[in-house]
Amino acid sequence: MEKNTISKATLGRLPQYLGLLRTLPQGEDDRISATAIARRLSLGEVQVRKDLNAASGQGKPRTGYQTRDLIRSLERSLGFDQNISAVLVGAGKLGRALLEYDEFSHYGMQIVAAFDCNERPLPYSRNAEILPMRDFVSFCKSHGVQIGIITVGKGSAQSVCDLMVESGITAIWNFAPCQLEVPEGILIKQENLALSLAHLGQQLYRE
Amino acid sequence: MEKNTISKATLGRLPQYLGLLRTLPQGEDDRISATAIARRLSLGEVQVRKDLNAASGQGKPRTGYQTRDLIRSLERSLGFDQNISAVLVGAGKLGRALLEYDEFSHYGMQIVAAFDCNERPLPYSRNAEILPMRDFVSFCKSHGVQIGIITVGKGSAQSVCDLMVESGITAIWNFAPCQLEVPEGILIKQENLALSLAHLGQQLYRE
Repeated sequence: MEKNTISKATLGRLPQYLGLLRTLPQGEDDRISATAIARRLSLGEVQVRKDLNAASGQGKPRTGYQTRDLIRSLERSLGFDQNISAVLVGAGKLGRALLEYDEFSHYGMQIVAAFDCNERPLPYSRNAEILPMRDFVSFCKSHGVQIGIITVGKGSAQSVCDLMVESGITAIWNFAPCQLEVPEGILIKQENLALSLAHLGQQLYRE
Repeated sequence: MEKNTISKATLGRLPQYLGLLRTLPQGEDDRISATAIARRLSLGEVQVRKDLNAASGQGKPRTGYQTRDLIRSLERSLGFDQNISAVLVGAGKLGRALLEYDEFSHYGMQIVAAFDCNERPLPYSRNAEILPMRDFVSFCKSHGVQIGIITVGKGSAQSVCDLMVESGITAIWNFAPCQLEVPEGILIKQENLALSLAHLGQQLYRE
């Protein structure tokens, strides 16, 4: 991935902008102002302007940004025009929902294979092959996979995690409701869907 | 929900602590220090201590907190010992994965029913009934449902959202990859799973 001169802090915010822009119309004449972006993301307008100018290399104080061009600029800055491969372990309902989620490709990510310890023939998934666990290590090593997604239950999440680390995976997205132990240098992103919903419930009562 | 004197900022952070603590052993002798919590959540130690003392009403600088007691205190402070009802629309793979996700109850949330426009008999879901869309408005009104979860595709997300607002729902958790328009006063939490994965990919290249 090409190095660029955008600060880490700005890079960390760019995906948010991209997430918003992707939901908007992207025709020839569709434009959006920094003010509108700031309002919709609850960010400061000065910061939004600075971030977007760093990514797109151009200020448009009067006319706003052309949505489509700004998306391309953000994708390039973020390296989302690259293709990063991920594998998933646990082809249950959640795993299969992620496999069939078409949005990943818009962010330069692709789930190239899924694995499951279930030896019964697995139902077809339209976006990726579902392979038996015995093929996991060799697949990851031969494909240089760097990202692993864990969608097994909490009882087997740690052993799946260990296997991922052994296979050369350096970043793990964990949906199992448990804290994983990993060697230093391995990134863990803990997804907690229950907490997300609870947060929303909390806000209801704090308004 | 009982009003308490904990600041909004602190309340906003409490679910994070709870999320971590829930993954730890909760026996009679299991304790955790503010230092350990701060490290695992990448937060400042002073802040962690202040937040936890506000919630649990006791400082334990030497011995740490008993994990189980601290969980109960956080639950009470957050109102997670209450039961908040949510409904879900879209009983596809993701919707059904959420329906069968057992963690919600630990956060005081319950998905009491799911709805789908699919008129074919729907497969059994162990945690909630799956009902036809024609029952949606009356169900929500009669049960006083306040939270709606959208797991339909982006093509029908806005119409589902409108129906939720009409039914008295005031907070919406949207998994469809599109921006929803809502009247003022309605909370929207936009879930973007692709962005979460992309963030992880980004971190790999920024290290």
